[in-house]
Amino acid sequence: MKYVYFFGNGTADGSADMKELLGGKGANIAEMTNLGIPVPPGFTITTDVCTHFYEHHKEYPSELERQVTDALKQTESAMGRRFGDPADPLLVSVRSGAAVSMPGMMETVLNVGLTSKTIPGLIEKSGSARFVWDAYRRLIMMYSDVVMEKAGGVEPKDGVGIRERLEELIENRKEEREVEQDLDLNGDDWKELAQVFKVTVKDVLGQDFPDDHHEQLWGATGAVFQSWNGRRAISYRRIEGLADEMGTAVNVQAMVFGNMGDSCATGVGFTRNPATGDNHFYGEWLADAQGEDVVAGIRTPNPLNEWGRGDQNAHLPTLNEAMPEIYTQLDGIRINLETHYRDMQDIEFTIEKDRLWMLQTRVGKRNGAASIKIAVDMHQEELITAEEAVMRVQPSQLDELLHPMVDPDAEVSADELAHGLPAGPGGATGQIVFTADDAEAWAKDGKKVILVRKETSPEDVHGMHAAKAILTAKGGITSHAALVARGWGKCCIVGCGTLYIDRHQKTVQVNGQVLREGDWITLNGTKGIVYAGELSLTPADPLRNESFKKLMTIADGVRTMGVRTNADRPEDAEQARTFGAEGIGLCRTEHMFFEPERITAMREMIVAETEESRRKAVMKLLPFQRQDFYGILKAMHDLPVTIRLLDPPLHEFVTLTSEQTVELAQKLELDLDKLKSRIESLHELNPMLGHRGCRLGIAYPEITEMQARAIFEAAAQLSEESVKVLPEVMIPLVGTAAEFEHQEAIVRRVAEEVKSETGVDFPYLVGTMIEIPRACLTANEIAPKAEFFSFGTNDLTQTTYGFSRDDIGGFLPSYLEEEILPHDPFQSLDQSGVGQLVQMGVEKGRSVKADLKIGICGEHGGDPDSIDFCYRVGLDYVSCSPFRVPIARLAAAQAVITNE
Amino acid sequence: MKYVYFFGNGTADGSADMKELLGGKGANIAEMTNLGIPVPPGFTITTDVCTHFYEHHKEYPSELERQVTDALKQTESAMGRRFGDPADPLLVSVRSGAAVSMPGMMETVLNVGLTSKTIPGLIEKSGSARFVWDAYRRLIMMYSDVVMEKAGGVEPKDGVGIRERLEELIENRKEEREVEQDLDLNGDDWKELAQVFKVTVKDVLGQDFPDDHHEQLWGATGAVFQSWNGRRAISYRRIEGLADEMGTAVNVQAMVFGNMGDSCATGVGFTRNPATGDNHFYGEWLADAQGEDVVAGIRTPNPLNEWGRGDQNAHLPTLNEAMPEIYTQLDGIRINLETHYRDMQDIEFTIEKDRLWMLQTRVGKRNGAASIKIAVDMHQEELITAEEAVMRVQPSQLDELLHPMVDPDAEVSADELAHGLPAGPGGATGQIVFTADDAEAWAKDGKKVILVRKETSPEDVHGMHAAKAILTAKGGITSHAALVARGWGKCCIVGCGTLYIDRHQKTVQVNGQVLREGDWITLNGTKGIVYAGELSLTPADPLRNESFKKLMTIADGVRTMGVRTNADRPEDAEQARTFGAEGIGLCRTEHMFFEPERITAMREMIVAETEESRRKAVMKLLPFQRQDFYGILKAMHDLPVTIRLLDPPLHEFVTLTSEQTVELAQKLELDLDKLKSRIESLHELNPMLGHRGCRLGIAYPEITEMQARAIFEAAAQLSEESVKVLPEVMIPLVGTAAEFEHQEAIVRRVAEEVKSETGVDFPYLVGTMIEIPRACLTANEIAPKAEFFSFGTNDLTQTTYGFSRDDIGGFLPSYLEEEILPHDPFQSLDQSGVGQLVQMGVEKGRSVKADLKIGICGEHGGDPDSIDFCYRVGLDYVSCSPFRVPIARLAAAQAVITNE
Repeated sequence: MKYVYFFGNGTADGSADMKELLGGKGANIAEMTNLGIPVPPGFTITTDVCTHFYEHHKEYPSELERQVTDALKQTESAMGRRFGDPADPLLVSVRSGAAVSMPGMMETVLNVGLTSKTIPGLIEKSGSARFVWDAYRRLIMMYSDVVMEKAGGVEPKDGVGIRERLEELIENRKEEREVEQDLDLNGDDWKELAQVFKVTVKDVLGQDFPDDHHEQLWGATGAVFQSWNGRRAISYRRIEGLADEMGTAVNVQAMVFGNMGDSCATGVGFTRNPATGDNHFYGEWLADAQGEDVVAGIRTPNPLNEWGRGDQNAHLPTLNEAMPEIYTQLDGIRINLETHYRDMQDIEFTIEKDRLWMLQTRVGKRNGAASIKIAVDMHQEELITAEEAVMRVQPSQLDELLHPMVDPDAEVSADELAHGLPAGPGGATGQIVFTADDAEAWAKDGKKVILVRKETSPEDVHGMHAAKAILTAKGGITSHAALVARGWGKCCIVGCGTLYIDRHQKTVQVNGQVLREGDWITLNGTKGIVYAGELSLTPADPLRNESFKKLMTIADGVRTMGVRTNADRPEDAEQARTFGAEGIGLCRTEHMFFEPERITAMREMIVAETEESRRKAVMKLLPFQRQDFYGILKAMHDLPVTIRLLDPPLHEFVTLTSEQTVELAQKLELDLDKLKSRIESLHELNPMLGHRGCRLGIAYPEITEMQARAIFEAAAQLSEESVKVLPEVMIPLVGTAAEFEHQEAIVRRVAEEVKSETGVDFPYLVGTMIEIPRACLTANEIAPKAEFFSFGTNDLTQTTYGFSRDDIGGFLPSYLEEEILPHDPFQSLDQSGVGQLVQMGVEKGRSVKADLKIGICGEHGGDPDSIDFCYRVGLDYVSCSPFRVPIARLAAAQAVITNE
Repeated sequence: MKYVYFFGNGTADGSADMKELLGGKGANIAEMTNLGIPVPPGFTITTDVCTHFYEHHKEYPSELERQVTDALKQTESAMGRRFGDPADPLLVSVRSGAAVSMPGMMETVLNVGLTSKTIPGLIEKSGSARFVWDAYRRLIMMYSDVVMEKAGGVEPKDGVGIRERLEELIENRKEEREVEQDLDLNGDDWKELAQVFKVTVKDVLGQDFPDDHHEQLWGATGAVFQSWNGRRAISYRRIEGLADEMGTAVNVQAMVFGNMGDSCATGVGFTRNPATGDNHFYGEWLADAQGEDVVAGIRTPNPLNEWGRGDQNAHLPTLNEAMPEIYTQLDGIRINLETHYRDMQDIEFTIEKDRLWMLQTRVGKRNGAASIKIAVDMHQEELITAEEAVMRVQPSQLDELLHPMVDPDAEVSADELAHGLPAGPGGATGQIVFTADDAEAWAKDGKKVILVRKETSPEDVHGMHAAKAILTAKGGITSHAALVARGWGKCCIVGCGTLYIDRHQKTVQVNGQVLREGDWITLNGTKGIVYAGELSLTPADPLRNESFKKLMTIADGVRTMGVRTNADRPEDAEQARTFGAEGIGLCRTEHMFFEPERITAMREMIVAETEESRRKAVMKLLPFQRQDFYGILKAMHDLPVTIRLLDPPLHEFVTLTSEQTVELAQKLELDLDKLKSRIESLHELNPMLGHRGCRLGIAYPEITEMQARAIFEAAAQLSEESVKVLPEVMIPLVGTAAEFEHQEAIVRRVAEEVKSETGVDFPYLVGTMIEIPRACLTANEIAPKAEFFSFGTNDLTQTTYGFSRDDIGGFLPSYLEEEILPHDPFQSLDQSGVGQLVQMGVEKGRSVKADLKIGICGEHGGDPDSIDFCYRVGLDYVSCSPFRVPIARLAAAQAVITNE
């Protein structure tokens, strides 16, 4: 059985598709070797050995030693140096490498092979005693920590580990020498420290530091295997859901050094710019340095080439200038790797005495803009297919283009005040105000404001619109504030429980600070973080981004589900259209009632005592509603518009102060006590489960009648103006077929009336929102009369879990923390619970009407995982807030590919 | 084809099992005839003729006329009189009779055969001209109304029907003669009126009143068939869900008269006493009278026998005394009928010139007590089987024995104030109070009070306990008031929306009246009616009722499901035990926290800021809880007790006035603002969907820990005292397996701790309440660790429908009225919606644990229809309030029989 895979001299036993056996690192090194790319030679001990190791009381397979010896010989021959050779010793690194990257979770030992026998020869060869003693003391530090203490199972003495003790010795030496940096210690310092280290190791761990190169190699190998079952690695696997059986490989590779003088260097690079996606080689390098020096930031690294030059490093030499031949070689490798891997790569290299060695290649991380550009460019370059381009961009990465973002650099050092639920993505900065009226007034004066509230209600909408962002102490991801903000693409954080807001004093206590009206704060709505002060933002302008538009076109070519938007106003509808919405999936009508002239008629309707006076009041609203529907149907001409009839409990329209109540009584010429008692009687203990939705339309059919009339009169008028309209009337909160049929009959009657009154014919549909469990359970009873279903998964999630979206803030954070819930079910659809009901609704609905049109208009319609689910259960379309339409288009395309 | 079935002379063509063909009346008359019981002869025209009539433009089958002629001949021969014979004419009645009784919905014509030719002969034979003219004018009134106007399709002239016009003529005549009663008009009056009637009929309807006996017969027959599709009959069938295709039969039967002199009489009877169930012949009779005279109540009827004698009729002659031979014959028939029909019968008879004729027999209606006694007695008499005895009693009839009831006689003339939802059965009368404290104080003074509230909360419990009944303006059948009241068997009406309560003024406006504190009202909680004033009540004492106890024993022998009770206190548990409860299915623990010394510790716990201080406060509650559980486990020794851990949202414990808040701040030495802000932060918009149930125990594990410890310490103590305990710890409101496992782990850990601390072993189970849809949908994930499921169908109904039980009053009444819901889903389980989830929960749960113990502890556990459902889906037991335990025992037995 083959346990050891050699690589070097242009060929490797392994390849990139052997990740399970060789781990990700080992497989990629083998692949690079096979591509003819110069990689320090070495070998990979397979994950099978790891499995054997744990199955046999930490013993190796008997063939291993011979295979290692053979591979070591091949390595020696490839490097032209021998392991343990006093004259010109080969040193090796010993690194872990599992099939799935587990960054920093397992151990590494470098400089293996340095012993009292090989040190003199290496000093001779390298010409630098300081370099060698420094390398030696690093070996002792790593080895004593990783191999002798951790893998040896030695309990740290007095709780202080060996590594910490050795680091303290370095600090002492620096104090003695009155220097600050390790760099300021010279060769003698390191030599002396190495001696002291060895004594300390013996003293603390009771064992000599091994002076034999083979003992070091096997010690380090065993320690890497042991680290697979270290505490950190195990808990990482638990969190990520990785299998314990996977095991790690061990990579033994010849050491190369970028810090042996001026002909040496080290660097990192990306095959394309990871911030912009531009197709230019991008990276940094340092002469006479080790890899970690580039990353550590002690020295400012040099740019690789002109593309990497900016204000800060304009004076520094490029690699292209300093080592033109090596740069050309490196650039060739870059192209080779990208062509081969068909994706942007993140690479590490070292130049040892004018010789280039590649140490690593892996898929490079990139931001949203770059991700899109690279995917689209590579598709145009015919490097990848349309399907691959679609899969290369995370839907969430589109957010970066769709919303202004807090500048990530500014965030690093910002003063974090609080965490909340990320309800509206993007960033915003502004001055705190505490009321909607203040928000509006301050905004009129040209100020940027952030509205800070315990929670918001429909009456705050004008202030929310004026504010740059909304921050609330209560509520969940589908609370009022969140819904409204997302509809406008506005930054919003909700459920920020550590805010203590005093509305009267106009102060907010948070994290031990007191903020006042007018103080600046900045919100990162994508992550849910509140910062003190004014941070800089990066603007959004997706429609000028050609790559974005191309990606959308590619995605549209792949996807099969429609994408609609949830929009209540013509402006929002138009915005969504520019983002590619193919109709409105949810037009809520209640927001239309809060304007001053309308709300009075609405209130008159609510407090009316007879059907006649109620009808009179309702009909006052007709012209307004007709105008609303005229606007939105016109903006969405040629596309379907699903209009939901009045949904919220009536008391939402009569939350009045006592003064306002008196005023209303006067205006409506009503007895004050009667008015109060009527308002009082509308109060509900659990309004979410109360008298709302179609229950209103059943109690007050004249509301349904007025709304239907407004819709159809607008439709008739537009039809006469030759605008094509497709209104779809949606009955909300239906739980029984009888409810639907009651309301449907009214809507159809009014449609016929309007048609015969106007003499205009227009198409329309009547369907229902499926948003309570009973509707799913009895969908086969509802479907015969309904022309469409639209899943309202916000309410469905509330009732399926018994979670109020307004109150979930009280326990959701701890539920997520304790992993009782894998994620916020209002953000991403709970497929195993709520999803079962959705599936049942689809199957039962289509069991009686095979071609029933079914969509989703809950907030989940904009969540990629939920969109994938919607595709799998066979929905015809998803609908989401305007600013999530592009995300939904991409996710819908990905769903097709993922489920192929 | 045979269309006409003769009966008479001791044999009949038909029998009791031919109800579909002959209708109920025709089949029973045939049966009686076959039993040798004297029944006036006649014939039944089958329902097939009705079907033919409507399928062939109201024409009869061609064979019909001949068959009628033949049957008429047989009838003539049996009576010894001929139809249309001028000398001794046979008169007949023509009556409808469908398979299912539709009382008063169709037409009847009596005295058919009276014409100018037959009148003189009948006067001669009867010896009474007045009798004959009276009979004739009755024929004209019925015939002109039923046959000529209604069946003839004549629109009433000026909206005034012919019958009304003729009645007016009688009134005029009485005025002229200055008399008040019809009885005071003599033979000449009736003769003259008959002439005037005929002129009027001709004048108004444009047709002569037919003077031919055959024309009368066929006219009446056709009119009865027509009345099957009369407006009243159709709408009755719609309401009762009867098929239009069923059709009616027509019964033509020789007239016999009880009003032809002193040798004539008429009467009604029951084969056993319908009020007590005593096995005595019970009934009333009148000499020289018609059947309607007995019912009309103008003359006080005589008792049939000594058993019927009371204070009011002690002086009146019994039939036994007046006509001993006929009484003996009648009593024989009574025994014959009961033996034959094997149920108590309601009979009608007429004595015409010393000859007894039976006119009707049918199953007699009876009250609850009688129903039970008759069933049990008949079973003991070996007349019926145990299964039949069980099926003979409606579970709801038991209510009459279990609760005091408003005296039905007093209700007839009482002043009805309002209708509400019948939340707690039984009757109560008392003086109005508006606060729980007043209720307690007044009750201490020995007053009977009724607590009138908008709604109740746990803090009102002491006042609710002190009151005779509770009346609320809001809430549904499972609201707080309803639940608590039912638990105590207390009368309660909720959701009485027409009450306007002014708590400060201590008045309630209802139905235009203003009632004040101290005013008397009476509640019928079985029907949901509120009366003004103090009505008399009939007391309840079921356990002294031997028949009741025997019926329960019979039912227990049949049923297979267990019956437990929902009880929170030892007294209630003991009460339920006497009613036959086999354990506690739901012991709520939250009611235990409202006593003064406990509530402070509870509040301290709630406002605690650190886990440590919270734990300290919680542990103060431990001794109280331990004592509670000790009491209830002891009361239920040898039987299982399911204890639900804390369920309600915390804010329920801190609804404080500002004074109380200040006081609490002082008591707990807390900053007032901080306390206020903590209380404020607990407020929820939809508490029913908020931070409650196991969500509390997860946020504050120390609550679960304390409760588990209290249960197990009590169990250990009782075990040491050799009391057998079976605690079952129930985790509430579980929606995910992770929630259950989190809480289960705590409970099991504490159990082990207590066992090892005390050295006592005791059995216990840990299970969960399945009460939100997601728990049903993922029951297979929850079941592996749960030892039992108990369906909480109150909450499950709330979330499945999206109905808040506290707010449903706003629309439920109109939903029931408009038949959008067939019944209140909180009262009787919604089998097609909620039931699907229950079934899913059972199937999914048992799919992973075949022997999973499953019960129901929602209010539906006491509803017979729901109990039938529970049996069908395979539940192990139902649990209900103590006063419904007998009902559940009976219903569970009926479920076995019904589903055989």
